[in-house]
Amino acid sequence: MNVTMALDLGGTKVEAALVREDGSVVEGTRSRAATGEAAAADRGAAEHAVAQVVRHCMAAPEWAGVAAAGIGSAGPVDLAAGTIAPINLPSLQGFAIADFVAGVSGLERVVLRLDGTCIALAESWLGAARGVRNALVMVVSTGVGGGVVSDGRLVAGSGGNAGHIGQVVVAADEASAVEGSAHDATVEGIASGPNTVKWARSQGWEGFSGEDLARDYAAGVPVAVAAVRRSARAVGLGLVNAATLLDLEVAVIGGGFSFVAGDYPELVAAAVREHAVNAYAGGLKVVRAALGGEAPLVGAAALVHRADLLS
Amino acid sequence: MNVTMALDLGGTKVEAALVREDGSVVEGTRSRAATGEAAAADRGAAEHAVAQVVRHCMAAPEWAGVAAAGIGSAGPVDLAAGTIAPINLPSLQGFAIADFVAGVSGLERVVLRLDGTCIALAESWLGAARGVRNALVMVVSTGVGGGVVSDGRLVAGSGGNAGHIGQVVVAADEASAVEGSAHDATVEGIASGPNTVKWARSQGWEGFSGEDLARDYAAGVPVAVAAVRRSARAVGLGLVNAATLLDLEVAVIGGGFSFVAGDYPELVAAAVREHAVNAYAGGLKVVRAALGGEAPLVGAAALVHRADLLS
Repeated sequence: MNVTMALDLGGTKVEAALVREDGSVVEGTRSRAATGEAAAADRGAAEHAVAQVVRHCMAAPEWAGVAAAGIGSAGPVDLAAGTIAPINLPSLQGFAIADFVAGVSGLERVVLRLDGTCIALAESWLGAARGVRNALVMVVSTGVGGGVVSDGRLVAGSGGNAGHIGQVVVAADEASAVEGSAHDATVEGIASGPNTVKWARSQGWEGFSGEDLARDYAAGVPVAVAAVRRSARAVGLGLVNAATLLDLEVAVIGGGFSFVAGDYPELVAAAVREHAVNAYAGGLKVVRAALGGEAPLVGAAALVHRADLLS
Repeated sequence: MNVTMALDLGGTKVEAALVREDGSVVEGTRSRAATGEAAAADRGAAEHAVAQVVRHCMAAPEWAGVAAAGIGSAGPVDLAAGTIAPINLPSLQGFAIADFVAGVSGLERVVLRLDGTCIALAESWLGAARGVRNALVMVVSTGVGGGVVSDGRLVAGSGGNAGHIGQVVVAADEASAVEGSAHDATVEGIASGPNTVKWARSQGWEGFSGEDLARDYAAGVPVAVAAVRRSARAVGLGLVNAATLLDLEVAVIGGGFSFVAGDYPELVAAAVREHAVNAYAGGLKVVRAALGGEAPLVGAAALVHRADLLS
């Protein structure tokens, strides 16, 4: 069975594995290395972490059959230049990660995309958006990100940064524009886990975490219920805009904070119905992600195994 | 030179012409018929209007070389079903316009798309978005509509309704959601010509039309200036969301109301810069449309002549 190398570079870790053409990870090939403070400050340390997980893959017997690699990276990226500039990794601004991985591995074909779009590709290949030609896949967690499949293809956009649903502006009324920062008006600025907890605390709630909020939501504590609904409403508004612009069929929601409420997808869908003007947008289906923590790696592998889904 | 039939169906008129592969209209082939009240109430009258402009094309000597037709239609459309359901033409709900035109003309190949996306295709082929792989083209007029070119292809979406920038929600703060309708919170609900005039009048301005507003904006009348800026800000917020989601390079703005101010594109670009969180979105170029009133027909012809730009 065809095997490819998949690599996911994030703000706190880099991970790689060999992935078969059915999406399964080759046993023993998955490894990770920290890309925390040391790597953020020192490109040498960051490069070392990337090289380490690549070499772990190269040590597997299955490596002999590997001809290409897929990379998902934290953004922003510049696909035309082949470089990345992850916000949380200052040392890697302008890093030509595809060339670097090609150099370490000897592979000639290395495909790079934004990490959010890799997750979308994974759900489109094997998850909740399988076979759906128009879908948005998003993660609601510490941050909010995602990727778009439009007319059957993963959208890259001009520099490769399409899919940033977290920075869609949903609360730019005149008052908030004066009072807050641009980010406060975005889906992420309102709906992320930390920002939802912060808002609840500003309303007198005394918990500290998403887990606390989940518990109090389940118990019907009014502030917790209001906070969760506020998060879901912002996500719903972002999705109304995406669905209106792109005539989407399905929105897939994953990420740890989406489990704050058993009915989080339903709350989001209700907000979509409430705010959509066009019927085709209001009818957007909102479902939970089917893949878990391996989605970024599976999606990176799909850059090779499912090149038919790329633009 | 290759010639195709182009047809544009709107709420007040249907128009057709033969268009060459360089985008020029064959002299004498362009005609229009009203689709006003009579056609809106009676499908027979509407079909008669469509057939009339098609037959006018068929009477031209160049008809002998025509093998296909492109149709742009007011929306919503259902491309999978091959039908349209234009809001302003109740008689044509569920009308299989492509089949109808094929029947009248005898042409085997008839391609249907939403009118807004045809204008985007026209600007992408011969206008201000020529050669741009990621662009949004919009019209700011009595209504606000548009189309999206993403990764070098015209986006259709699930049913063919992608591009509805007018229904993107940009002012859904809690207060306005309670006071107004969903439409009041959209780009069109705020930025269209009639809605901008209405807002200015609500602020004590005594003009009645976009022309009045243009005159008073040029003269620096404060309410007129505020009204125009409010319109441009809503358009800018819609474009921030589109550019953030799709990593666009260029936004093209046409439509009569966009001429209310000589610097309307600059006002829009300033709003984009102000509200974008991601640098790639804030750097969106905002330019005026290059094509005029023939853009819908040129774009309908491009459905055939530039099939390489379709998904």
